[in-house]
Amino acid sequence: MQVSLGEDDQGVCGTPSAGVLLDHYFSNEALMTQIAKTPEPPYYAVIFTSERTETDAEGYATMADAMVELAAKQPGFLGIESARSDGLGITVSYWSDLAAIANWKANSEHLSAQRLGQSQWYEDYQVRIARVEKAYGPQKFSDL
Amino acid sequence: MQVSLGEDDQGVCGTPSAGVLLDHYFSNEALMTQIAKTPEPPYYAVIFTSERTETDAEGYATMADAMVELAAKQPGFLGIESARSDGLGITVSYWSDLAAIANWKANSEHLSAQRLGQSQWYEDYQVRIARVEKAYGPQKFSDL
Repeated sequence: MQVSLGEDDQGVCGTPSAGVLLDHYFSNEALMTQIAKTPEPPYYAVIFTSERTETDAEGYATMADAMVELAAKQPGFLGIESARSDGLGITVSYWSDLAAIANWKANSEHLSAQRLGQSQWYEDYQVRIARVEKAYGPQKFSDL
Repeated sequence: MQVSLGEDDQGVCGTPSAGVLLDHYFSNEALMTQIAKTPEPPYYAVIFTSERTETDAEGYATMADAMVELAAKQPGFLGIESARSDGLGITVSYWSDLAAIANWKANSEHLSAQRLGQSQWYEDYQVRIARVEKAYGPQKFSDL
């Protein structure tokens, strides 16, 4: 999924207009708060489970948002789902293959975020890389 | 993981005492709100992502709690993690192999819960079955 800005989306002086920022906000929200529309398996999932420290909630939220936006621009990105409650956070990102995951893990901006996460924001975490072999949802009338 | 009650945990007349109910509550909470302590891969993950209706929140919570407790008693159960925010719920359960997952999916009490979920509680959901190939966390001092 590419998140690209057309020329029409640019405000004056080449900086994004408020409309674009709002669009970005909503598309970012939609990326995180809905069930990801993934293709037929096989594909890969990165299951990231974390327990947060109480340090720098605002900095964390800003970085988390930026990382979702950056992830969505990477080759092989298929979708992302995220939820947090009772101190436990789960973010599952979906990728076309292991090479796409390796590329995202090694992204320089993402590496900086990973370092900050490990030193400041996460009490503990676990990354699990898994091959999705089967996927199904409810039978909807719209599917019939 | 077996959740069994010793004789000492029984209250009068063979009914569980308040202490047992409290223990169950806490062990159930711990099951859901911590990072699962899973073995070295390979093992399997069931990634269950859902969008809830606004129907019967209390009945849903009671059933969800019962299902976690029941899942934990099944052969091959390795752990479970769950979080919900902004309308999106993510529950990831971990299993030793595909046979354990098939067994849990076909469990009669679980089948009843699945039917209620589909008819009442879930606006939409997606089940993804994935083989965990790699897992890692932060390097902790306790690991050194």
